Order: sequence, then C-alpha cells, then structure tokens
Amino acid sequence: MRYVQTVSNVLNLVKAAILPALAKAKVVVDATAGNGNDTLFLAEHTGDEAKIYAFDIQQAALDNTRMKTAAYAQRIVYVLRSHAELECVVAEDIDLAMFNLGYLPGEGHNVTTQVESTREALRQVLAKLSLNGVCVLVVYPGHEAGEQEAAMLEDYLSALVKQDYTVGCYRLLNHSRTAPYAYVVEKVRKRSED
Amino acid sequence: MRYVQTVSNVLNLVKAAILPALAKAKVVVDATAGNGNDTLFLAEHTGDEAKIYAFDIQQAALDNTRMKTAAYAQRIVYVLRSHAELECVVAEDIDLAMFNLGYLPGEGHNVTTQVESTREALRQVLAKLSLNGVCVLVVYPGHEAGEQEAAMLEDYLSALVKQDYTVGCYRLLNHSRTAPYAYVVEKVRKRSED
Repeated sequence: MRYVQTVSNVLNLVKAAILPALAKAKVVVDATAGNGNDTLFLAEHTGDEAKIYAFDIQQAALDNTRMKTAAYAQRIVYVLRSHAELECVVAEDIDLAMFNLGYLPGEGHNVTTQVESTREALRQVLAKLSLNGVCVLVVYPGHEAGEQEAAMLEDYLSALVKQDYTVGCYRLLNHSRTAPYAYVVEKVRKRSED
Repeated sequence: MRYVQTVSNVLNLVKAAILPALAKAKVVVDATAGNGNDTLFLAEHTGDEAKIYAFDIQQAALDNTRMKTAAYAQRIVYVLRSHAELECVVAEDIDLAMFNLGYLPGEGHNVTTQVESTREALRQVLAKLSLNGVCVLVVYPGHEAGEQEAAMLEDYLSALVKQDYTVGCYRLLNHSRTAPYAYVVEKVRKRSED
C-alpha cells in the first residue's frame, strides 16, 4: 500500500507556506502555467481583487489552464509569451510569483524550461517584487536541462544580497539529490526606499 | 527602517507549512514549551478535540506557558519533565510534534536543550508518530550546544529510511550557516502495517 506524503512533499509544503502571502497578494504571477494546476491553486487562495498573470509559451497549455481556471477567468490574464518577456506585460509590482520548472505538458519531454529564459524571467520578477513579496521556484534536477537550471539557480540565488532578499531552500535530506526541491525568495528591502 | 520577514523567516515558514497537518491532528506535542508561544500557536490551530502535551523541565517556563495558553487549558497537559521521558507520559500515537530547540527562558543562556536528551526525545516521538504524522525541529547552530545538536540531528535524520520517513530541511541560502534552520519529518509508513 502506498501513502501520499503531505507536509514533506516539496510542492505541498511550498504551497502551504505561501498561503499567508497569497491571502494578502494583489498581483500574482504563475510564470509556468503548464496544465494550470498551480494557476488554479493561486486563484483559489487569493482574494476577489487579486489579479493573476499566467504565462506559457504553448497554446495548448494555456488552453488547458484557461479551462481549468474558468471560474476565476475574470481576474486571470492568460499570456501566450515566454516568462522572459514578463516586464513587457506586467506593469504592477508583483506580490507573489511561482515558477514550477521543468517539462511542459503536451509536448513530451522535448519542451522544458531553459536556463537562459528562466534566469531572465527570475531577474525581471525579483526586480518587480513588492516589499515582502515572495517568489517560489520548484526545481527538478533529475533531467539534464533541469540540472543546468538547478546549478544556475544555486549560483544566482546564493549571490543575492541578504539586505535585499532572504533566500531559503527546502530540500529532502534522506532522498536522492536529484529529487525536486524548492527555493523561497522574499524581498526584504526595496532599493528605492534605502 | 526595519522590515519583518514573513515567508522566509524559518519559524514562520514552518508554522505555515504545518497548518494543514495541525487542522487534522488529535494528539500534539510541544517538546520544548519554553515561554509558551509555540504551545499557544499549536492550541490556536488545532480542533476542539485535539489534546496537546507541553513539556518543559523548568517550573517557571511551564507557569508562563500555562498563563499564555489559559484559554485552551482544558485540552493541554502541562508536563514538568524532560521531553526524553515522553514515552512515560504520552500513551497515544502522536500526529504532530514540535521541537523549537535552544535556550530556555528565565535561566539566562546556561540552560539549553542538550544533544543526548534531544536525540532520545526525538527517537521516542518518531516511534510514536502516526501515519502521515509530522515532527518539526527548529535548530539554532549559532551557539556551542546548538552546534552539537545540529550535527547530531543531521546524522540522525539523514539515516532515516526513506520508505518510513520523509525528511526535509529548510535552510537559508544567502545567510550565515549559523542562522537557524528547520527540519520537517513525516512518517510515510507504519512498521506494523508492512
């Protein structure tokens, strides 16, 4: 008999951890809409005035996301562009952003998030984070592109100045190092407020 | 101007992460009641039928905990014993246990949790965890006893068999390695149910 992990599952833990931030969020970004499960989660746990941007480069993924989140469509902006073009689309400060990296559905395993566009999207998101705004990233180092992404993120996030951002990592201790893990980034100072 | 960290604060993140487990918990243990803040948090986020055991070896700490949690006293058992004697007191399976390690209040910095009793208490808690039961530990490696405790926990928890327990660690990436961090342990198989 198999049991479902609850608290210790990385994605579940991250989702539980961001609920307080989501409840207060006005502008939310799902940088990797995929099949729409995370967009739905974000919509379900934000207030009626929160606006959600859902990015995906695949029409089929965005169609699935739109169907799955139909009940919340009036406050979701579905964006058929790379998350690396986020700053062309999102004018507001961002209160919460989520990157659930890795393969995109419907295209087999040949379409996955990539080091360069993920770094660029992350850079844009962090620049637009509001004070106490939160960015979470779920990382899948078990495939080649994911491994490269993981290495890039470790370098990039380790280098963030602690006066500006707090970066945490939730990682399984007694599983393979290729198991998925998560980063939580919080902006703790806005440069313009120095 | 100083800002309060929310999601990225280790204790806050852990507390948010265990809310779903707490909502379902029937038997809860605060292994380190201290000044009672965590006991209060556990009482506030459990149902009316949940029973909470609060352990502390200091009468003053337990008195403070009792005062702080007076509104929930009818379902809290205040235990003036070491958490290493937990199995003499708690008969039931445990759904959630919390260890917020380090100094005890009211005695300066000369009374702190210790490697041997923490290991023994943890062993007893894990043995009594129910299926999908969760044990969280907040670790403070910035002082000498805390550093020894941290080393013991890393060894102890790394060695837990993944078929029985999932062990996760939430740690800050861009802060000092002596910053507090947390473990989340979930029982994913009961031996008797093999």
